[in-house]
Amino acid sequence: MVDKSARLDAVFHALADPTRRAMLRDLARQPRKVGELAAPFEISLAAASKHIQVLERAGLIQREVQGRVHVCRLDARPLHAGVEWMRHYERFWNQRLDALEALLKAEDRAAAPAQKTRTRQSRRKP
Amino acid sequence: MVDKSARLDAVFHALADPTRRAMLRDLARQPRKVGELAAPFEISLAAASKHIQVLERAGLIQREVQGRVHVCRLDARPLHAGVEWMRHYERFWNQRLDALEALLKAEDRAAAPAQKTRTRQSRRKP
Repeated sequence: MVDKSARLDAVFHALADPTRRAMLRDLARQPRKVGELAAPFEISLAAASKHIQVLERAGLIQREVQGRVHVCRLDARPLHAGVEWMRHYERFWNQRLDALEALLKAEDRAAAPAQKTRTRQSRRKP
Repeated sequence: MVDKSARLDAVFHALADPTRRAMLRDLARQPRKVGELAAPFEISLAAASKHIQVLERAGLIQREVQGRVHVCRLDARPLHAGVEWMRHYERFWNQRLDALEALLKAEDRAAAPAQKTRTRQSRRKP
């Protein structure tokens, strides 16, 4: 349970930064060398490396060492736990919307006879 | 676009902490006063207040001031953007799995005649 919680911490922390989200978007297209992954951003290679390390700790990047070259690949699997966690609240939110809709419909039904009477009355007044 | 990105930053940052996730779980059951929300955790009221502020900035908590009492309510709506963002990668992951499955099936089909031959041969040897 602690492990699962720590993994959620790492995944959500990794996603809480626009540079890291952009890196994942880039890796969704194809694997990249560390330098290629850093290139589109106006940040130092050291800063890019830190972002990559955060993504690695969250398990979202697999790094393959080919001699001097490090190739990064996306591993989207850790996102599943995050989606599952958030879906619970999405359901909750939808339930609240359903309950609100039911309440409004019930109010409409309760108000309907009165409205009809009012409509008839208003018709009598030209 | 920048606003949407900043909102994603705030939502994912808010979710990247077990205390804050537990507070959201608690609020999914019912609204809570700030003191009630802080009570289950072995942290100071000041530390709890900081967590609540992070959740407020992400739009996940609505605070209602009733005289001296602050009542917090869950607002799950900002989670939608987060789920949508993550779903894009879930699809990507599933596509990768589908592609892998198709590849394995194609290999199976290609290997099938050879396997049958081998099976017949092995039957001849008792």
